[in-house]
Amino acid sequence: MPPKAYAVRGRQLSTLASQAHTLLTSDTYCQLLKSLKGPLSEDEAANVRLSQEDYDKAACLPASFVEALTQASSAAMEAWMQARKQNDYQIFAPALARMVDLKKQQAKLYGYEEHPYDALLDDYEKGATVKMLDGIFDELRMELPPLLAAIASKPAPDDQFFSQHFPKQDQWDFSLEVLKAMGYDFEAGRQDYSEHPFTTSFGPTDVRITTRVSEQNLASLLWSSIHEGGHALYEQGLPEDQYGMPLGMAASLSIHESQSRLWENGIGRSYDFWSHFYPILQARFPEQLKATSLDSYYAGMNRVESSLIRTEADELTYHFHVMIRYEIEKGLMENSIAVKDLPEVWNSLYQKYLGITHPDAVQGILQDVHWSHGSFGYFPTYSLGSFYAAQFLDAARIAIPELPVQIGGGNFKPLLAWLRKEIHQYGRKYRSAELCRRITGQEPGISAFMNYSKEKYRRIYQLNKPEM
Amino acid sequence: MPPKAYAVRGRQLSTLASQAHTLLTSDTYCQLLKSLKGPLSEDEAANVRLSQEDYDKAACLPASFVEALTQASSAAMEAWMQARKQNDYQIFAPALARMVDLKKQQAKLYGYEEHPYDALLDDYEKGATVKMLDGIFDELRMELPPLLAAIASKPAPDDQFFSQHFPKQDQWDFSLEVLKAMGYDFEAGRQDYSEHPFTTSFGPTDVRITTRVSEQNLASLLWSSIHEGGHALYEQGLPEDQYGMPLGMAASLSIHESQSRLWENGIGRSYDFWSHFYPILQARFPEQLKATSLDSYYAGMNRVESSLIRTEADELTYHFHVMIRYEIEKGLMENSIAVKDLPEVWNSLYQKYLGITHPDAVQGILQDVHWSHGSFGYFPTYSLGSFYAAQFLDAARIAIPELPVQIGGGNFKPLLAWLRKEIHQYGRKYRSAELCRRITGQEPGISAFMNYSKEKYRRIYQLNKPEM
Repeated sequence: MPPKAYAVRGRQLSTLASQAHTLLTSDTYCQLLKSLKGPLSEDEAANVRLSQEDYDKAACLPASFVEALTQASSAAMEAWMQARKQNDYQIFAPALARMVDLKKQQAKLYGYEEHPYDALLDDYEKGATVKMLDGIFDELRMELPPLLAAIASKPAPDDQFFSQHFPKQDQWDFSLEVLKAMGYDFEAGRQDYSEHPFTTSFGPTDVRITTRVSEQNLASLLWSSIHEGGHALYEQGLPEDQYGMPLGMAASLSIHESQSRLWENGIGRSYDFWSHFYPILQARFPEQLKATSLDSYYAGMNRVESSLIRTEADELTYHFHVMIRYEIEKGLMENSIAVKDLPEVWNSLYQKYLGITHPDAVQGILQDVHWSHGSFGYFPTYSLGSFYAAQFLDAARIAIPELPVQIGGGNFKPLLAWLRKEIHQYGRKYRSAELCRRITGQEPGISAFMNYSKEKYRRIYQLNKPEM
Repeated sequence: MPPKAYAVRGRQLSTLASQAHTLLTSDTYCQLLKSLKGPLSEDEAANVRLSQEDYDKAACLPASFVEALTQASSAAMEAWMQARKQNDYQIFAPALARMVDLKKQQAKLYGYEEHPYDALLDDYEKGATVKMLDGIFDELRMELPPLLAAIASKPAPDDQFFSQHFPKQDQWDFSLEVLKAMGYDFEAGRQDYSEHPFTTSFGPTDVRITTRVSEQNLASLLWSSIHEGGHALYEQGLPEDQYGMPLGMAASLSIHESQSRLWENGIGRSYDFWSHFYPILQARFPEQLKATSLDSYYAGMNRVESSLIRTEADELTYHFHVMIRYEIEKGLMENSIAVKDLPEVWNSLYQKYLGITHPDAVQGILQDVHWSHGSFGYFPTYSLGSFYAAQFLDAARIAIPELPVQIGGGNFKPLLAWLRKEIHQYGRKYRSAELCRRITGQEPGISAFMNYSKEKYRRIYQLNKPEM
């Protein structure tokens, strides 16, 4: 967007948001919903129930509040970009403080039983609470550090081969090949370039993804593309005949993230996947990869190491990045952390959990856009998604015993069909935890993720059982 | 857009159109408008008057009709693309017939005094009527053929030099240089690639243009870029404080087109312009252009010749392309032409006015997207725009006697300032004809355009006065 456009874009978004809110909370709509009592099919009943849920929630917020929130978000977005440009958190702080105030108001307007943050979490992940997340992150704080310590005691695999010259077009073509194999429908979507990869859906027949490419780093494109491809496969798999209805929407952010993480990490960083694709990749980049064996390539892509940027973290330390943001958001909402103290809180948490200190604000506290959007309660869904992904992958392996062989042969159809059948087709019918129980027979939790991680990294780092 | 997306996009557009229509025609809005009677400034009064005009017009159409029209337009768009793919007009014909029916209904719903087409013209050009356009095109049918005949009697200037290899990036960079010189604000806009060039505005601080590039033809990019730049300068010049109000909008389609044509043809195909830019262009493409002098380059870009595609026509024969479409639309609306007979009508008109026959439907009757959009009454504004452009340029030359020297020196600031002062700042305050009278003291007409054309082509083709 051109730099001078922000003010007008803010007005436009705020007008649209308040119009949408007015429609969603109108008496006419409320009466219509209440009149839908006749004999309803199971799906119809679910659509009515979920629409009522959305109505009840939206009705808590006056239109003026929605407009104020949207405007504050545009202002905060602009301040965030300015702050990044000048590498100065103080430029962002006033807009963030205003946003935090509004989010506290929002929590009050929604109402909550135990913790104000619960009310905000509910916007992104129905049923998630501080109590539930504290439980999950407590477990993680217990279980992850021993594994990380064991890994740190071993020599790190080399990943220098990623940092060579890889021509853009060849990378691009390879990513298209991978997406096609995954089952992404290019008749109902497309891939484009952007600085920050994302997926955007206009309905299951129009789901677009973007990715980034660096000619100096092969890793930049590959897993972005697979990650967004996972999101897109979910959106393309939502029931077309439910478009516009709750059952035509994704179950939740965490289930969405479970799909992207399952493909990105569970599949896209697996040995089986690359035993099929690595020869193809080598054929595209014969000079660059001739000295790197499949085993070295696989180990390199799974190198574990504390790092500065959440979106570039490995699949283990990633969750400490998320946990730090969770602790901060919770603290802001319960007034145990003040916006002005954030940089110190940030630094001390990063020291404590990852043993690192960010050299500046841009690479540190200004690295994520979420707070400027007012997205408080969003981050935890990233970790929940990874944990669900591990649980789902276990279930898929039980349902499809030949899965490893299929993946190793570049055949992803049975896996996608299973995801479509178990997850995609239901849209929002089941909440995350319920869906998890239906598919796996287990409660949501981190044990599948920890088992998967221990098994995987034991081999790569040649860890002995006791070390873990 | 991905091919499977059309159906859902149709539903989305139709929902938005009917929502917008409902808001625009609501009693609340109507009452609000009526209550605005207090002491109003001149601009406020104009905003109220124009808003009332829009309300009255929109109130003629039931929401169900607006929705039907939007849906028919999506269906027609898809049929048009299918028809183009298979090079078969009959695939498009049923959807076009449905669209023509709806447009006749729309004319009835609007109401009209003399001709049903008048009601549709009014959507694109307030105050335009069949009577007025018949007058203008009658004159054109009288005056243009002798000039074209004189030109045809002379040897055509060579334009082969355009058809060489011109690397994409160099063309792109040159177009940016030209746009910057014209005064296009890249902080409030950007240029991107697309198959069909267009301008889109989200407010004066966010006006984006697209252009096309062919490495085999330099002409493809250059005048598209300048043309869209002309549109964009108008949008960037609209008063920011009137954003969202009628006075924050362009006066009309013809005035919009006058801005793009003035820059594209009046300036961008002038000798003065290229006496500044040609050495710069030559420096970018020294090998390709070393054998072509400024005079040959100038003559080549102004080669006149009957051709198949409207958007690629020279600035004289172009108006016969428009006139043919005008005659067809008028005939469809008064039932003197039937949709099924269109290909024959098309061919006989092209034979009559341009002496050519299209080899197939794709290059012929399927070449424009407008009818699939339901845009009946749009084409004439292209010609009106050219005629206004000639009138405005005459007025600018009188107001700024140094204009030719400025253009020759690459200084477009005084011209842009004049356009801003005389046209852009007023938004929709004056209708096209009224604006023309204010600026030029003349009625709208073709004489300025004919004088400009005779003068220009007399020199290029070395015509003698009597021949013209």
